[in-house]
Amino acid sequence: MRVLGVDPGLTRCGFGIVENGSSQKLIMVGVGVIKTPTEIELAMRLLALENELIACINEYKPDVIAVERVFSQLNIRTAMATGQAAGVALLIAARSGIPVAMHTPTEVKAAVTGSGRADKKQVALMVQKLLSLKEIPKPVDATDALALAICHHWRGTGDARIATALAKEGARLKRVSKK
Amino acid sequence: MRVLGVDPGLTRCGFGIVENGSSQKLIMVGVGVIKTPTEIELAMRLLALENELIACINEYKPDVIAVERVFSQLNIRTAMATGQAAGVALLIAARSGIPVAMHTPTEVKAAVTGSGRADKKQVALMVQKLLSLKEIPKPVDATDALALAICHHWRGTGDARIATALAKEGARLKRVSKK
Repeated sequence: MRVLGVDPGLTRCGFGIVENGSSQKLIMVGVGVIKTPTEIELAMRLLALENELIACINEYKPDVIAVERVFSQLNIRTAMATGQAAGVALLIAARSGIPVAMHTPTEVKAAVTGSGRADKKQVALMVQKLLSLKEIPKPVDATDALALAICHHWRGTGDARIATALAKEGARLKRVSKK
Repeated sequence: MRVLGVDPGLTRCGFGIVENGSSQKLIMVGVGVIKTPTEIELAMRLLALENELIACINEYKPDVIAVERVFSQLNIRTAMATGQAAGVALLIAARSGIPVAMHTPTEVKAAVTGSGRADKKQVALMVQKLLSLKEIPKPVDATDALALAICHHWRGTGDARIATALAKEGARLKRVSKK
C-alpha cells in the first residue's frame, strides 16, 4: 500500500509518500513541500496548490491519501488557510476516487513516538529512524507529511498507542468546547 | 455586470445572482441553496459542493464571483467547514478564470442597510426591497448570498458607508487578535 501524507498549508504544504514493502518495512518513496506565493490572491494560491497536488498524485499514484485534521489552531486566520488547503486535498482525493483519511496531530505523534504530546524534534527523529533516512527531511512540513503517512499505515493495525492518544484527545476536546 | 454571491457553507451554501440592468437597477437573476448531506464523508461533501457550484456557474455565467470572507466564527469546527466551502468556491472561480472578490459580513451589512451591525432580518428586508422581490428568499443563506452580490455591485462605487464599516471592523479585529 502506498500512502500520500499531506500536511496542509497555503504557504507551505508538506507531502510525503510512504509504502510498505514486501517485508512490511516502511519505505519513503517521495517527499517535498508545495509553496504558493503569499503575494498572489487566495483563489490563485488555492489553484496553484491544486495543480501541484494533482501533479503529485499523478507522479506517485497513491492508494490512499492521509490529510492532517486540524482544529486546535487558536489563530482563526491560520486555521482558515489550513482548512482551505486541507479542503483542496480532500476535494482532489474525492474527485480522483482515492480513499482519504484524516488523522489529528495527536494521533500522528502517538503513532510515531508513542506519545501524543511529543515535540516536533522527537517526531522528526522517529520519522528518520522508521524510514531509515540518512537525514531528517526539511522543512518540518515535509517530515510531518511523512509522519502522517506512517500513522496511516499503522492505524489499520489498531495500534493501542493510538487508541490511548485518541482517548486523551477526546478529553482535551471536551475541555476546549466547554469554554 | 452579473455577480454570483456565495455564502459558503457545507450544510447549506447560499448562492444568489444579481445583475445591473440598463437603468443600473439591480435585478435578481437566480437564487438558491446547495445542501450536502451531513452523513457522507467530508471529501465527498466538498466534491458535491464543487459539482453544484460548477453547474451554477455554467447556468448563470457570472462575470464575477463574490464570496463571504469569514474569520469571526468562534467555533473552530464551523470555521473550518465554512473555510473549506469558501475555498471550493474560490478554487472554481480561479480555475474558470472568473474574477473573485471577498467581502466581510460587516461590509455586506453596511452596503445593504447602511449599518455594519444590522441584524439578519434587516438585511433580508433590504435585499427584498432593493431587488423588488415579492417575498424574502429563504433560507437565510440564500438572502445572504444576494446581499453579497448587491454589496459587490456597490463596492465599485466607493460607497462611504462601506469604508466606515471597514474601519469599524478593523478596530474590532485588533481587539480580537489581542486575546
